[in-house]
Amino acid sequence: MKVSEAMSHPAVSVPTGTPLRQVAREMAEYGVGSVIVTEGGALRGIVTDRDLALAALDSGLDASEAIDSVMASPVITVNVADDIHAAYRTFRTAGVRRLPVLEDHRVVGVLTVDDMLIDVFQRLADLLGPVAWSVLEEPPGPPSADTRSRKA
Amino acid sequence: MKVSEAMSHPAVSVPTGTPLRQVAREMAEYGVGSVIVTEGGALRGIVTDRDLALAALDSGLDASEAIDSVMASPVITVNVADDIHAAYRTFRTAGVRRLPVLEDHRVVGVLTVDDMLIDVFQRLADLLGPVAWSVLEEPPGPPSADTRSRKA
Amino acid sequence: MKVSEAMSHPAVSVPTGTPLRQVAREMAEYGVGSVIVTEGGALRGIVTDRDLALAALDSGLDASEAIDSVMASPVITVNVADDIHAAYRTFRTAGVRRLPVLEDHRVVGVLTVDDMLIDVFQRLADLLGPVAWSVLEEPPGPPSADTRSRKA
Amino acid sequence: MKVSEAMSHPAVSVPTGTPLRQVAREMAEYGVGSVIVTEGGALRGIVTDRDLALAALDSGLDASEAIDSVMASPVITVNVADDIHAAYRTFRTAGVRRLPVLEDHRVVGVLTVDDMLIDVFQRLADLLGPVAWSVLEEPPGPPSADTRSRKA
Repeated sequence: MKVSEAMSHPAVSVPTGTPLRQVAREMAEYGVGSVIVTEGGALRGIVTDRDLALAALDSGLDASEAIDSVMASPVITVNVADDIHAAYRTFRTAGVRRLPVLEDHRVVGVLTVDDMLIDVFQRLADLLGPVAWSVLEEPPGPPSADTRSRKA
Repeated sequence: MKVSEAMSHPAVSVPTGTPLRQVAREMAEYGVGSVIVTEGGALRGIVTDRDLALAALDSGLDASEAIDSVMASPVITVNVADDIHAAYRTFRTAGVRRLPVLEDHRVVGVLTVDDMLIDVFQRLADLLGPVAWSVLEEPPGPPSADTRSRKA
Repeated sequence: MKVSEAMSHPAVSVPTGTPLRQVAREMAEYGVGSVIVTEGGALRGIVTDRDLALAALDSGLDASEAIDSVMASPVITVNVADDIHAAYRTFRTAGVRRLPVLEDHRVVGVLTVDDMLIDVFQRLADLLGPVAWSVLEEPPGPPSADTRSRKA
Repeated sequence: MKVSEAMSHPAVSVPTGTPLRQVAREMAEYGVGSVIVTEGGALRGIVTDRDLALAALDSGLDASEAIDSVMASPVITVNVADDIHAAYRTFRTAGVRRLPVLEDHRVVGVLTVDDMLIDVFQRLADLLGPVAWSVLEEPPGPPSADTRSRKA
């Protein structure tokens, strides 16, 4: 199983030099918690909503400042053709919650801890067999609007 | 098993009226991703780092604005004496990632999805028996400084 | 959450003195992998299909022999009113796959590792939220007749 | 990740024509719950301790009878070079608890549901990071002799 099969979130990206304000708008519009920063298509950094909050309110950066000084860089990545098992090892050693996915040095997606938990869940379901489906017949409660704003 | 045994994060809280800037500072100092808002000790709201990022950079609120207009309210909670199973059900229906924990109407902690995943992990370890420990003998990689900044 | 909510298998039981042949028939008829042995309603032992196989074919016991010399005794148990968490701890320390469940010194059920794995699965589903259900929309393959004969 | 990395149990096998008594002895000696039946190295069937118990005590077969009429055949298998993900799918659709592992039409191992649960557990540990190890610092109770006789 490849990384490409588990990554569920297309990467939202902005070019270097984008103002903090615009990065926040992208996060709001696409309902994601992190944005990739690229330069000529090449990965330069990654920034989370938390990074933005601390930059604007704790460090006091202006909303018009470029994202470049706020983004984390360099970035730990995985390759789209990697075995998913390699991604697990990378999460274990890197201590992060999201990994940009590269194909030929370009970002084609993001792999999150939540994507991986879904993978774990599916595997457990496979092992439990039909009983897993019967257990989940009970409806999961109202599809919550909050799920859109879950940290990606 | 009670909620009190699983909640690992003491709640970081601020009074209503606290400026956004100060809330961001508390999040940075304590390495948490959400802060409880109280009034005379009573829970009034909850705010995440993402809420702060969007308020300051997307909505354009000033750093001196009070947290009151930004916080989510009312807040879904669990009781410190609840069975942990009730907390699972609440997570299922509420679609959130953290629940303030109340004791006599006062917030005594926060229960996060990550706390609950640890509970799931421990249960699985209990079922696998000694083999679970042998599997984990391999060191988990360098204790990452990043773990401190994981979203709480 | 109590043990009573997780135990899915009514206990199949036989009185002390029952011949091995009859115990095997009960296991075949009810599709279970273990049988409780009682005396005047009180728990005396537990026997698995494996115990029967080795007794009859490795030790060479006759099919008319009483189950008493084959059953494991004494038996580690849990109480029907115990918190499910206590059952996890018991599985961890006891190294067995099934625990008879007692109510007022009488056996009212059996709690298996498989019951507990279903509990773990449900908790993980609760944490993942609606996405868990969407993942499992794919049918689990033909409901297999083999599930009936899975070791209880 | 390949099937070869997850299969922990070398396959115990007997040739077709082996008496039931001898198959039970192999199960007892190697502490396994199933045995592969081969003919000239080629897989012909698989038999569990439960199959033996019912054959000897419910069906009344003599201990000197050949295993051939008791074994399940044909047998669902996986290939040693298969991605582990293919094995999950096979478990899901086949409704069995163990799959012989083939390499060039010869059995080189057995993959069990328990092996796969260990794989699930490791993945979850990878995602939880260092906290997973700290949780498991508590000793798992006395290393139980029972683990040897757990159904393979």
